[in-house]
Amino acid sequence: MPTTGTDMPDASQFLIPRGFRFGAVKAGLKKSGRTDFALIVADAPASAAAAFTANRVIAAPLIVDKEHLRASGGRVRVAAINAGNANCAAGEPGMIAARVTCAAAAAIFDCPPEQVFPSSTGIIGVPLPAEKLIAVLPALASSLGSEFDHFQQVAQAILTTDTVEKIAFAHLEIDNKEVRIAALCKGAGMIHPQLVPHATMLVYVLTDAAVEPAVLDGYLREAIEVSFNRISVDGDTSTNDTVLLLASGASGATIGPGNAEFAAALTQVCTSLARQIVADGEGITHVVELQIDGAATNADALKVAKAIAHSPLVKTAWAGGDPNWGRLAAAIGYSGAEIDPNRFDIQFGDLPICRDGGRAPEFDEAAAHAYIAQREFTIAIQLHQGPGACVFWTTDLTHEYIHINADYSS
Amino acid sequence: MPTTGTDMPDASQFLIPRGFRFGAVKAGLKKSGRTDFALIVADAPASAAAAFTANRVIAAPLIVDKEHLRASGGRVRVAAINAGNANCAAGEPGMIAARVTCAAAAAIFDCPPEQVFPSSTGIIGVPLPAEKLIAVLPALASSLGSEFDHFQQVAQAILTTDTVEKIAFAHLEIDNKEVRIAALCKGAGMIHPQLVPHATMLVYVLTDAAVEPAVLDGYLREAIEVSFNRISVDGDTSTNDTVLLLASGASGATIGPGNAEFAAALTQVCTSLARQIVADGEGITHVVELQIDGAATNADALKVAKAIAHSPLVKTAWAGGDPNWGRLAAAIGYSGAEIDPNRFDIQFGDLPICRDGGRAPEFDEAAAHAYIAQREFTIAIQLHQGPGACVFWTTDLTHEYIHINADYSS
Repeated sequence: MPTTGTDMPDASQFLIPRGFRFGAVKAGLKKSGRTDFALIVADAPASAAAAFTANRVIAAPLIVDKEHLRASGGRVRVAAINAGNANCAAGEPGMIAARVTCAAAAAIFDCPPEQVFPSSTGIIGVPLPAEKLIAVLPALASSLGSEFDHFQQVAQAILTTDTVEKIAFAHLEIDNKEVRIAALCKGAGMIHPQLVPHATMLVYVLTDAAVEPAVLDGYLREAIEVSFNRISVDGDTSTNDTVLLLASGASGATIGPGNAEFAAALTQVCTSLARQIVADGEGITHVVELQIDGAATNADALKVAKAIAHSPLVKTAWAGGDPNWGRLAAAIGYSGAEIDPNRFDIQFGDLPICRDGGRAPEFDEAAAHAYIAQREFTIAIQLHQGPGACVFWTTDLTHEYIHINADYSS
Repeated sequence: MPTTGTDMPDASQFLIPRGFRFGAVKAGLKKSGRTDFALIVADAPASAAAAFTANRVIAAPLIVDKEHLRASGGRVRVAAINAGNANCAAGEPGMIAARVTCAAAAAIFDCPPEQVFPSSTGIIGVPLPAEKLIAVLPALASSLGSEFDHFQQVAQAILTTDTVEKIAFAHLEIDNKEVRIAALCKGAGMIHPQLVPHATMLVYVLTDAAVEPAVLDGYLREAIEVSFNRISVDGDTSTNDTVLLLASGASGATIGPGNAEFAAALTQVCTSLARQIVADGEGITHVVELQIDGAATNADALKVAKAIAHSPLVKTAWAGGDPNWGRLAAAIGYSGAEIDPNRFDIQFGDLPICRDGGRAPEFDEAAAHAYIAQREFTIAIQLHQGPGACVFWTTDLTHEYIHINADYSS
């Protein structure tokens, strides 16, 4: 059974996939003065699969990424990631900034520019000062390493409003060979990924398995669908969401389609990161797992989960520990899913709250309040319409969220 | 040209439509102890048209209203409105509470129960104590009057988290007869009406014109589409939204289909109330008019307006007076509307902000900040895709909204 970063006992367990080097530096993009430019470099061109935001306004690096993956046949040598500027809605200067950064990285690592995968996160609408990135590239390139510390440097440099770094690991044996998976990401606000194959979330998943790009893509789509596409902090789908999965092959283990063990390990790593993103959501004080069952279809289950996850009234009630389940009923009603208003049930954990569309006879307001006063809790909804189901993770909406977002760029 | 309540010079202008009486009383439903039960009583059965929420979970009074309008052929004698309890998600006891209240009102006013139109607003999921309403009905019935003061009593009694009463008036001449329109409503949170013919908003529009129910329905649908269906405070579509339009005929002027002057006066009254609801939105400090033009279709224009109006990141930026237009660009991108990311323009009032998907050369951050620091401002978006357009009114998202809604029922 693979294990993930959050429940790992000690640093010796953080097995970094072989075939990659890491590093980060201060390029002067973050007002805080923290590290803001990171590289993940494969020793040789790695097999790559990627997913990007469904937003129609997408950042310049994502346009370049798509071109590069097509041109390289799904091979990536260098992922170049900056925080502090999203390089989005920045017009032609934004495209030029992304391209010149790739060209500079390609020159240093002696690879074609199309094997460079740029990413940016931060404020939208301000042109990226590529000259700042290019100026520090040589020093960054000479500082790379393959230890946990180097990996962690990347995890720190890409953060924006995040309060903690987010990493996850798994390892498994395939053909008597140890295969490692390590992943890192950022994301705290503008979090409602709808990645295509569904991705202000940047996620980098690395493995030393040998997997062809097309096969890797299948594994990535499957893992994303039940992890990053099942979370929302604020319902704002970003212009920059990106998930990149790289396979170096350095373990010597080759993985073809249909390897359930690899799929499970990958999904677990992605789910761990998705939950870490929610748990670090901007200003949040509660993490809520929504379990929707009995929907007519899985799509309907997702509609109900998203209506609840995006309701300011539901999210503020959670912030106050207020067991006002009527707001849940309203959101279920306007979700667009097929429902019977006299035939849905709501539980907070194991506590019956609503039955057949009305207050459950056992409803105990004090117990309900105590339950949702916890930092993490579960709300289970049964619609009695069919076999559709989903699990979705979201957050409350607090004063601190307002504080963070009412004073961002000024 | 009709005038509306908000810009009326003095109380003598508040012309109450003839044929109606009004009153309100304390039934003990509001914790504040304020008046919470109101009646609008037509001297004779009035011609009626109504619109209700599109939410699939709807309150008991709305179910009863639909039954009653069908059974009465669109005739209403009494509108009985309580605040402090929404009588929603309250199961069979909720239905019984609505029906016994109607029966009691019917007995007092000597009309069939199906000519009683009940409405409720307040907390969801708590059974309505109908006995409290029935106990005060006789005193309420004997206190009714047809002056502005009586009308205003209703406007006050139906408020919940509203801070001000919301009323609008118009009058016009038809066939040398003065026709009056008066309207009142409540609504501050859970405001994103999607009424069918599209409606926690309760709206009562009264006229002394003589209009057949089917004709009245046509006028109502048309007026709603550009008023109540074009506002959002928090994106939460209520279980109780109701708009009731009553025509007493007491002016002696008969109005058939296609009377542009009556339609304009009705639309103006509805638009005035819709804007008053937004301006009294829970905790708001800014009222924003969104002008979307150049969309492929009107439906696309509305998608863009709603994506912006429901984005917590956009709404918190407004709260902070932050001209972070990148968040607008992101919302435009995920709206689902047809757009060209390199071909949309954003203006704050007359200030160019974004052109062709990137920062406008004339962008002046200080001027932009000063403009949106105003309590009311306009954001104009041109998509260059087609003839689709809409005007939509929404609000910012503030600390006070969180404060109001994180501590509602407890």
